[in-house]
Amino acid sequence: MSESDPQSQEQLVVVLPDGSELEVDAGSTVEDCAYEIGPGLGRDTVAGKLDGELVAKEAPVYDGVDLEIVTDQSDEYLRVMRHSASHCLAQAVERHYDDVDLAIGPPTDDGFYYDFDNLDIDEEDLDALEDEIEAIIEEDYEIEREDVSIEEAEDRLAGEPYKLELLEEFADENDEVSFYKQGEWEDLCAGPHVDSTGEIGVVELLEIAGAYWRGDEENTMQTRIYGTAFEDESDLEAYLERKQEAEKRDHRKIGNEMNLFSIQDVTGPGLPLYHPPGKTVLKELEDFVEDLNKDAGYDYVETPHVFKTDLWHRSGHYENYADDMFIFDVGDDEFGLKPMNCPGHAAIFQDQSWSYRDLPIRYAENGKVYRKEQRGELSGLSRVWAFTIDDGHLFIRPDQIEREVEEIMDMITDVLETFDLEYEMALATRPEKSVGSDEIWEHAEEQLENVLEKRNLDYELEEGDGAFYGPKIDFAFEDAIGRSWDGPTVQLDFNMPERFDLSYVGEDNDEHEPVMIHRALYGSYERFFMMLIEHYEGRFPLWLAPEQLRVLPISDNNLGYAHQVANEFDEFRVEVDDRDSTLERKIRAAHDDRVPYQIIVGDNEQADGNISVRDRFEDQEYDVEIDAFKAHLEAERDEQRTEPDFLQD
Amino acid sequence: MSESDPQSQEQLVVVLPDGSELEVDAGSTVEDCAYEIGPGLGRDTVAGKLDGELVAKEAPVYDGVDLEIVTDQSDEYLRVMRHSASHCLAQAVERHYDDVDLAIGPPTDDGFYYDFDNLDIDEEDLDALEDEIEAIIEEDYEIEREDVSIEEAEDRLAGEPYKLELLEEFADENDEVSFYKQGEWEDLCAGPHVDSTGEIGVVELLEIAGAYWRGDEENTMQTRIYGTAFEDESDLEAYLERKQEAEKRDHRKIGNEMNLFSIQDVTGPGLPLYHPPGKTVLKELEDFVEDLNKDAGYDYVETPHVFKTDLWHRSGHYENYADDMFIFDVGDDEFGLKPMNCPGHAAIFQDQSWSYRDLPIRYAENGKVYRKEQRGELSGLSRVWAFTIDDGHLFIRPDQIEREVEEIMDMITDVLETFDLEYEMALATRPEKSVGSDEIWEHAEEQLENVLEKRNLDYELEEGDGAFYGPKIDFAFEDAIGRSWDGPTVQLDFNMPERFDLSYVGEDNDEHEPVMIHRALYGSYERFFMMLIEHYEGRFPLWLAPEQLRVLPISDNNLGYAHQVANEFDEFRVEVDDRDSTLERKIRAAHDDRVPYQIIVGDNEQADGNISVRDRFEDQEYDVEIDAFKAHLEAERDEQRTEPDFLQD
Repeated sequence: MSESDPQSQEQLVVVLPDGSELEVDAGSTVEDCAYEIGPGLGRDTVAGKLDGELVAKEAPVYDGVDLEIVTDQSDEYLRVMRHSASHCLAQAVERHYDDVDLAIGPPTDDGFYYDFDNLDIDEEDLDALEDEIEAIIEEDYEIEREDVSIEEAEDRLAGEPYKLELLEEFADENDEVSFYKQGEWEDLCAGPHVDSTGEIGVVELLEIAGAYWRGDEENTMQTRIYGTAFEDESDLEAYLERKQEAEKRDHRKIGNEMNLFSIQDVTGPGLPLYHPPGKTVLKELEDFVEDLNKDAGYDYVETPHVFKTDLWHRSGHYENYADDMFIFDVGDDEFGLKPMNCPGHAAIFQDQSWSYRDLPIRYAENGKVYRKEQRGELSGLSRVWAFTIDDGHLFIRPDQIEREVEEIMDMITDVLETFDLEYEMALATRPEKSVGSDEIWEHAEEQLENVLEKRNLDYELEEGDGAFYGPKIDFAFEDAIGRSWDGPTVQLDFNMPERFDLSYVGEDNDEHEPVMIHRALYGSYERFFMMLIEHYEGRFPLWLAPEQLRVLPISDNNLGYAHQVANEFDEFRVEVDDRDSTLERKIRAAHDDRVPYQIIVGDNEQADGNISVRDRFEDQEYDVEIDAFKAHLEAERDEQRTEPDFLQD
Repeated sequence: MSESDPQSQEQLVVVLPDGSELEVDAGSTVEDCAYEIGPGLGRDTVAGKLDGELVAKEAPVYDGVDLEIVTDQSDEYLRVMRHSASHCLAQAVERHYDDVDLAIGPPTDDGFYYDFDNLDIDEEDLDALEDEIEAIIEEDYEIEREDVSIEEAEDRLAGEPYKLELLEEFADENDEVSFYKQGEWEDLCAGPHVDSTGEIGVVELLEIAGAYWRGDEENTMQTRIYGTAFEDESDLEAYLERKQEAEKRDHRKIGNEMNLFSIQDVTGPGLPLYHPPGKTVLKELEDFVEDLNKDAGYDYVETPHVFKTDLWHRSGHYENYADDMFIFDVGDDEFGLKPMNCPGHAAIFQDQSWSYRDLPIRYAENGKVYRKEQRGELSGLSRVWAFTIDDGHLFIRPDQIEREVEEIMDMITDVLETFDLEYEMALATRPEKSVGSDEIWEHAEEQLENVLEKRNLDYELEEGDGAFYGPKIDFAFEDAIGRSWDGPTVQLDFNMPERFDLSYVGEDNDEHEPVMIHRALYGSYERFFMMLIEHYEGRFPLWLAPEQLRVLPISDNNLGYAHQVANEFDEFRVEVDDRDSTLERKIRAAHDDRVPYQIIVGDNEQADGNISVRDRFEDQEYDVEIDAFKAHLEAERDEQRTEPDFLQD
């Protein structure tokens, strides 16, 4: 960005958020730049962002960097404050416990944590620590930064093995490191922090968990204390409410209550077993995309979960991805569990010869992939070792990009609307380093833009954020409690066709290279299923509900009639509660089991040959004709309505 | 069987096929026993079977053994003769080629082979070898057995590295080994053989292949010559005809022609990739058993392909099966690809508590399993590393055995009849070593017998041939050219419930152990699919055919109408042959592609709004109404008829 001139060694140019450029002296810090813009901003500066990365205001800027000044009015301020709160936590711990070893204490998206070794603590001890933190805040210590030599740092950190391990790494690239000091306590830390502990609002400690040093299960298990901080009590309370809502919806809890899946010690971590009710939901999800795929001309294929690593050498995954793969030897050859389905599909495409008239070729597979996440990171269905992608790969001519992407966008919006999910999308374009000709990139990006413009869709343009092998459209969706999730992707690929030497014979009788599109509608079934469980709080739409109907006989006299009624509804997943129990209890059980509709049958219903219907909103209607209810249910199921609405019109 | 008496050390008892017992002197051979029965039989004796194993007539019998005398009237005679034919092959090779190393040369189910190292030979050289074998037969050498010491054998085998390797192993357990000599040639061999080369009927050499020494891909690749032998020319010709028929039906050839699947070097051995047409057939097969399973109250589950080996330690597979498993380490733990689905299903059952009222619990899964076959043994879909079982596991009370087995038998016969497969079955009962109480074994065997008797089914009783953990019913079926295949199995299991500590609360409020049933209807999809391809020669019934209909426009004028007609049939898998080609060629292509029906549309059809229908038997009917044909097709598909019969009534 800066013009090359003889002064460039002494002057730097930084780029401000509005795109304007600021010329400053070489060696200037974030804070210097802020003062350059204006003394008020200089005084208010808490931290900075350099090319998007949060840094201390003392950090030096460099030529061409995107600079943002962080003040207490910035979104990032909360993050800075939480980092300081984590220091208060460590300070409080060291005031209360002897011989504790400090590890690390970063801010997170919604709070902070600090990891300790040799700390013996229970949940009930957290109140005392919270009081201590409150005291530290009231004592309003100035938070001072100090840059010291490596030798000096070693002295200060004597007896802190984890800090010394970190220092050793810093020492490879730096002559100095920074400490942040508040009152009697200090920590090796790059910052940034607020100016004094008094500027921290309210702090709440949330829970204690075990965490491996550096996330590696080979290392010591340390004690992690989670907390959060907000500017005031009302923000904290709103957060805690959201958190409680999220916990109520936790898919691990609901998954267990509804017998959807299990992850067991004996069967292994990150490897879910789907129980009958969970598999029922998965199967409905599979059938739904299968219908969409068939309508859109996709053909299903089936590829192994294990491949010779020759395939990954050819696809390029071996170079970039081997560390995350499960690889093992058989005889002299190396095999691996597949981390992606695309190379298998490319191998199928390559096994045949194609004419331009055959394209587009569209392969679909519910393909299980395996990625070796750190064991400490595994959690329920959201982080697993094995997950199934509703994968699709298209092999198309360049002139077919627009039409095919349009079709995929239709399928994706169909899925997201079916589940009542709000969504956003972004178009990511050619990065600096890329493969493929200028011509194909320009053509492809233009066609993607056409699709988005033609449909009048709002999207963010993320220039230069595409993969090196092609541009993409990313979706993100929002669930019922406002959380955002990574969604479907449409990824063009100019690289894999070349690596697999894929070709078709064009109208000109020459060989041409197809463009490949990777696309998923759900993404991973595991992730999507998890998100649906939490989105619906386990109260699935009728078409997805593992148990759709439950018939409750009022007394044993109505047992025969109850089974007769259940038979009438045998196109649905229906159960009879024939347990020896009161009606009230049966209603409660059906409610707890999240069954969309209950059919209640007593002597009156039996005499009249009809039923009473109760929905999960606790509304009930008597004298319902079986056929009328059945017709409603069929429509509710087939139209995939998200709420039971027989009694809600 | 023999009564214990003071003479038992000098007298043995052998059991003859009719169940009678024969007392002979200790040290008697098979031949001695035959002479004991009668001098005629003694003279005719070629070999014997001891407890089912084919042995030389010189083999000593042992106390309690089941003895069968083999003469030239026995079924096994052909096997003996083929073994002698393999010796003639080796003798012929050594007459024609210098410095050849001999490996092994056993008889097989339909012929024999001999493996050689340092043999440079082509298919066209086989005729000369056949002539040489014929000469050896005409020369009518006596085939003499000689027992020699290990040292003597070493001398005789000098310069034969493979024979010496075999000898070394024999030497561990024997003081003497046997040689068989014919003319100038002899071989280390346990026999049995016919009396002279003149007794060998006709020999045909079939093909040359590579084979690893001892089937292990780590070893040298040797040259294997396959041949067969029959008593006379007409038997040989009948065999060659059957063989040709089988080659025409070879699923690897048809699989390639129909684009059903591929097994590629880059993706790995024994790991088939299913292409769209193949996956279409598989999907129909999956849907068919899914319907059967649902009607019979099975619930689908989904289990990982990878488990921590803790699971296999618990199930007992680790002790007995680890060598055939793909096992690898992740961090400090050991993981493995599953060789069976049952332990995963047991883990799901175990994750919940059950009452007697909940049983039977029936889990189904199309579960992929992995077994490390020798790479030299892998072949098409018939021997693979990864295959999918249409697995089912039931957890039942002992009193439910009969009812559940009956239901399973119904499902199995439904499957076999749907595919028009003849079948046989056998009941295998308690072996000597077994787990489980007398009570449960007797009860279970009685219930299995009840099922078979009640249904008036012919079955073989294989006493003592059950698994150590429970009795079973095995099915074998016969395909269109009379070959027999292992079929479905119903296996009771009293062991796994104990190992997994499975239980339910009985009516008596006590904990009880359920009985487990393993059952599969197809067995492995890969095996069954292979068998169907060969059984139908790729001409699948309409409901299974990857392409069910093809519309052939006579000229470009009829292209629009052809697509309109195809749309009318869009509930079927229909294609339009819109290539620029003659009708004759299009008919030929559709025939070669094994499409059950062709719809031909020209100007007449277009004018009248109807179609001409041609089936794969080359019959054709004009002026067919679209709706009438559609109604027929729907019935033919839904009733799963095995042949296209619109024009065949």
